Amino acid sequence: MSHTNRRVFIRQYRDGMPLPEDFGIEDTVIGALPAEHALVKVDTLSMDAWIRTTLTPGAFHETAGLGSTIRALGVGQVVESTAAGLSAGDWVYGPLSAQTHALLPAGALTKLDLSNSIQPRDYVGPLGLTTGLTAWVGLIAVAEVEAGDTVLVSGAAGAVGSMVVLLAKARGARVIGSAGGPDKCRYLVDKLGADVAIDYKNADLAAEVAAAAPGGINVFFDNVGGEILDVALANLAPANARIAICGAISQYSDLANVRGPKNYLKLAERNAAMKGFVVTHHAARFVEAKAEIAALMREGKIVLPEHVVDGIDHFAEALLLLFAGGHTGNLLVQP
Amino acid sequence: MSHTNRRVFIRQYRDGMPLPEDFGIEDTVIGALPAEHALVKVDTLSMDAWIRTTLTPGAFHETAGLGSTIRALGVGQVVESTAAGLSAGDWVYGPLSAQTHALLPAGALTKLDLSNSIQPRDYVGPLGLTTGLTAWVGLIAVAEVEAGDTVLVSGAAGAVGSMVVLLAKARGARVIGSAGGPDKCRYLVDKLGADVAIDYKNADLAAEVAAAAPGGINVFFDNVGGEILDVALANLAPANARIAICGAISQYSDLANVRGPKNYLKLAERNAAMKGFVVTHHAARFVEAKAEIAALMREGKIVLPEHVVDGIDHFAEALLLLFAGGHTGNLLVQP
Repeated sequence: MSHTNRRVFIRQYRDGMPLPEDFGIEDTVIGALPAEHALVKVDTLSMDAWIRTTLTPGAFHETAGLGSTIRALGVGQVVESTAAGLSAGDWVYGPLSAQTHALLPAGALTKLDLSNSIQPRDYVGPLGLTTGLTAWVGLIAVAEVEAGDTVLVSGAAGAVGSMVVLLAKARGARVIGSAGGPDKCRYLVDKLGADVAIDYKNADLAAEVAAAAPGGINVFFDNVGGEILDVALANLAPANARIAICGAISQYSDLANVRGPKNYLKLAERNAAMKGFVVTHHAARFVEAKAEIAALMREGKIVLPEHVVDGIDHFAEALLLLFAGGHTGNLLVQP
Repeated sequence: MSHTNRRVFIRQYRDGMPLPEDFGIEDTVIGALPAEHALVKVDTLSMDAWIRTTLTPGAFHETAGLGSTIRALGVGQVVESTAAGLSAGDWVYGPLSAQTHALLPAGALTKLDLSNSIQPRDYVGPLGLTTGLTAWVGLIAVAEVEAGDTVLVSGAAGAVGSMVVLLAKARGARVIGSAGGPDKCRYLVDKLGADVAIDYKNADLAAEVAAAAPGGINVFFDNVGGEILDVALANLAPANARIAICGAISQYSDLANVRGPKNYLKLAERNAAMKGFVVTHHAARFVEAKAEIAALMREGKIVLPEHVVDGIDHFAEALLLLFAGGHTGNLLVQP
């Protein structure tokens, strides 16, 4: 049986921020399945900042070819399968991409564990590789947050940032979130329970961070890069602070001219560490991470607000919303 | 009994590299000792890059006041003492500064352990806080070097760099040293046993580092900053590399405009860490460090070449030689 797939593809590359006309939409027909494949009806796609780096040649994730479907991770339900381990109706997670139907080798898909009232969509949310697990790994495995730490999170109103705020609070830290605009700042305090919210668009960032962290920052979880990274370095605690470099969304539009942190010598002055991480390198700790997050979800301590965009036709729009930081919480597309 | 002290002081601050006329020399008379003090005849002073950062207001070590004696660490012999634990003839280590005689509170001085054929001068060399211990802490406690690692060391022909090369070789690593000029490069290979020497003044640094480390760099010990730091970041091993930030001598002349590492996102891409360190924060490991270094000295595996300048009148000259990188090995002044 053949299926029609509607997909969103890259029409052209652009220096700087992509525009709507850089994307195209088309319908294709999916024919018979090769062996060991599954056809997945895409349910929900995770709108992640890393997608930005696939849209420009030379960026650090593999660039998507012109005409190829925009890469995205998501959850969906198997419609047909030629693989032994997968049957129609199974829920799976994988690189489903910006489309309504994904035809993939079974090895690219992970069957979801839906015990303990976990919903499929949690796997692109609190339990998602690029959302909850990324936050957990950066905050806990990499930055080794401790109760009593003062934690600064940039891009705190985004999906990863929101999870970092929630996890850091659950671990007993004092949390300062930075985000753009008063609405997001209210969200940080009212919805997530951040202790302090700093509006980087309207604040003297250096002065506000210094005022919010008089004893210095013990942990900085950076999603943004640029000025906030230098401000954080200048305000590190006197000793043993940890910076987790998750991303640098402020720099992704011009990766040839990244702003390097000119205050990096504070690392030497204050015996501090700046650690980058690839979430999958910490896979040995995913069981522990998922158990902690799931338990906090059951206790109601982790409720990750969502911003859901309906319809694959609006995928590119949602992507541009993500890059512009126009959402709060977990931005998802339901094809 | 009074003693005449000849001292070198700061006459004026200067933006950029100091000049000879920025320093002055004068004789003073040291009178009676206060209680709990010792008068030390300075034997040998360690010429360290950190001194550079005391000569400019706003740098990260405390700036020395105009007219004050230039700060330096050294070893010397007690001439007179009013302190219970120190007697004439004792060898001590401490902040003796650029002078022939240092009058200091006993608490600022450490009595030297000269057992096992250790010489006083070893405490401003292989066993010195700012030389051997700094190298050991950065390479072993911070960067956790392992046998088989590929180690890149910048400023490798300096005192700390030389010790890093020797220690890394002793620990079974493959060592690439960078230094300025063919003489220093020969020194790295012939005197220290480095596997590869790169002359940053005459090489395409990026191409040479890439060629010397085809599998990537596991450990980078950085004394220099600037270009070599970006080159090292671009050539990190695919996973789990460690950068130890010891200093940034290329940046000390203009600390308001430090070149931040624009390739810092490689840390995230390759799950790598950049760690600064303050050697004294790792004091808990000094016993282990000294034992390892002393054992390697006895085995003849650590012989740190010296460049000795005689006479306190030549202190400023030696300092400018240090800043210009005009020496190889451990630069010392014997007043």
